[in-house]
Amino acid sequence: VKIPELQTLRASSARDRVEIVDQTRLPHARETVVLASAADAAHAIRAMQVRGAPLIGATAAYGLALALREDPSDAALAAAHALLVATRPTAVNLRWALDRVRARVSHLDLAARADAAWTEADAIAAEDVATNHALGKHGLRLIQRLAEERRSPVQILTHCNAGALATLGWGTATAPIYLAHIARIPVHVWVSETRPRLQGSRLTTWELRAHGVPHTLVVDAAGAALMRQRRIDLVLVGADRVTRNGDVCNKIGTYAKALAAHDNDVPMYAAVPSTTIDWALDSGDAVLIEERDAGEVLNPGGESIAPAGTSVVNLAFDVTPGRLLTGLITERGICAASASGLEGLFPEHAHG
Amino acid sequence: VKIPELQTLRASSARDRVEIVDQTRLPHARETVVLASAADAAHAIRAMQVRGAPLIGATAAYGLALALREDPSDAALAAAHALLVATRPTAVNLRWALDRVRARVSHLDLAARADAAWTEADAIAAEDVATNHALGKHGLRLIQRLAEERRSPVQILTHCNAGALATLGWGTATAPIYLAHIARIPVHVWVSETRPRLQGSRLTTWELRAHGVPHTLVVDAAGAALMRQRRIDLVLVGADRVTRNGDVCNKIGTYAKALAAHDNDVPMYAAVPSTTIDWALDSGDAVLIEERDAGEVLNPGGESIAPAGTSVVNLAFDVTPGRLLTGLITERGICAASASGLEGLFPEHAHG
Repeated sequence: VKIPELQTLRASSARDRVEIVDQTRLPHARETVVLASAADAAHAIRAMQVRGAPLIGATAAYGLALALREDPSDAALAAAHALLVATRPTAVNLRWALDRVRARVSHLDLAARADAAWTEADAIAAEDVATNHALGKHGLRLIQRLAEERRSPVQILTHCNAGALATLGWGTATAPIYLAHIARIPVHVWVSETRPRLQGSRLTTWELRAHGVPHTLVVDAAGAALMRQRRIDLVLVGADRVTRNGDVCNKIGTYAKALAAHDNDVPMYAAVPSTTIDWALDSGDAVLIEERDAGEVLNPGGESIAPAGTSVVNLAFDVTPGRLLTGLITERGICAASASGLEGLFPEHAHG
Repeated sequence: VKIPELQTLRASSARDRVEIVDQTRLPHARETVVLASAADAAHAIRAMQVRGAPLIGATAAYGLALALREDPSDAALAAAHALLVATRPTAVNLRWALDRVRARVSHLDLAARADAAWTEADAIAAEDVATNHALGKHGLRLIQRLAEERRSPVQILTHCNAGALATLGWGTATAPIYLAHIARIPVHVWVSETRPRLQGSRLTTWELRAHGVPHTLVVDAAGAALMRQRRIDLVLVGADRVTRNGDVCNKIGTYAKALAAHDNDVPMYAAVPSTTIDWALDSGDAVLIEERDAGEVLNPGGESIAPAGTSVVNLAFDVTPGRLLTGLITERGICAASASGLEGLFPEHAHG
């Protein structure tokens, strides 16, 4: 099977640099940027040249490896970890990947650290592809069933970009879609544009086009209307952080789509690699929601869309209560978006 | 009381032209356009130089009067009515105003028609201001109660522009807000930007600023998150068409906000002058939803936000079931968004 990946991140064989696709330039230009230090990696994450929880995690892991290449001391390790973990507050994969690399190297001799860190970052990247593929195979069954029961093509709504561009390959919400497309099950994807940064219109359309998957772009508010018009069979979204009770923190607009899916009996799932589950948080109400610059809202392209001086609040994420979701798709299978659902698939994380 | 109006439409005393504010140029320029014929009026409505159900109705009424000035024949009357009624399919005020002017003049001598039509258009415009003021006074009571019970300033979310710019004065959803502001009750308005045409960010911010009402701009999807964060006390929206059962057809995004208001026990009302009620339709499911150009979605300003050739569906409106709304605010008072609620206030329209 050809892996739907878009070379979002390529680690050099000399282990001294990482090349990324600058996602702020898509869809009109595909440009790459070289990261040669932890500072470069931190900038790429902060500026959202790389985005998507899994890709942020891998980029940060390589950033830590690059820092250790320059200075493998404990102080340098701590400083690079602190720098990178502070770049984005909401995605849990970021801290998970950084902690994993740090744990792998902190007991090693200084001379061995950089190489071990790089090897660990490589493992995180490879595991992401394998995890998404496994997750995709579970999600594929949902699409197969809809193709048999309902209609063809299966009409799938997605939001933001939980695609190949958000990962090292396959994407999360898109993995079932790409597998269905490869298996010649007809699918049509409704792409929600995802204001303010327009990751749906800028990125998801771009990668679906690159892979030949039919799709149609709509504004965010149209998702609910399309569901009421019975034009959507399935909603698939990603997640930036899932709490133990199955609450899903994801791009702003996910909660409204879940309310509409629930009101119209449209099945809706979040695609969740286990690296995105924050077992330390009991509920989504405890997740820190990133607020970003007013400029993202005021300037979707060219001139400002509001009078000069207009006050803006720019919430980047929202929390969807698990009760509104049909389930979570993980690399181990599909479960209810609840504590018992998650603990059934991940018994090693069950409370006491 | 100073009327919050923005000279959206000024009829000349010579009864030969109408001057409108070109709302496609706001917020960065306030330019006026002169309408001297029915064709001019039809273009202004189609191009959305004037928009908002009440303002569309008044503009069309003057358009019919201008047509009769040129040619008062039955054929010309029928042609102008047909031209104007086809400009926008969703707002019911358009047909209501055109039918009212036609009924007023069709039995008159040809020589008397143009003047009578103009007088009728003047009446429609004047009644709109009075209706909105009456509606506003009923809505004001809701805000007064929240100011006493909950907090100050009262946090009000609105969507699209159901403001002074959508009417001849006061606005519909904004009428209670302006009356509260005039009565020195502190209010803060959350303005939903309203993709694709951004009437929230382009128009509502502009007119709230013109009247000194504090406000903050957010993307459409943020409304639901703000309600979940308990940062909204009241949701006030307008309507393009309300059916007998209390279903509200309004700008795309209204339905999702109603779902969120309902899920979070936030009171939500549609402000509905009775001219917006379509007594001929039993349910919102029967309303024809206008689909508009892809360009509105693809070009929010400057360069396209999606790859060239991206397919788009652009639904301009959605239908909010009455069951999700706390009520409807009309010029006769506040009622449940249901057939019995509406028939209680408008017994003359109750079924036989």
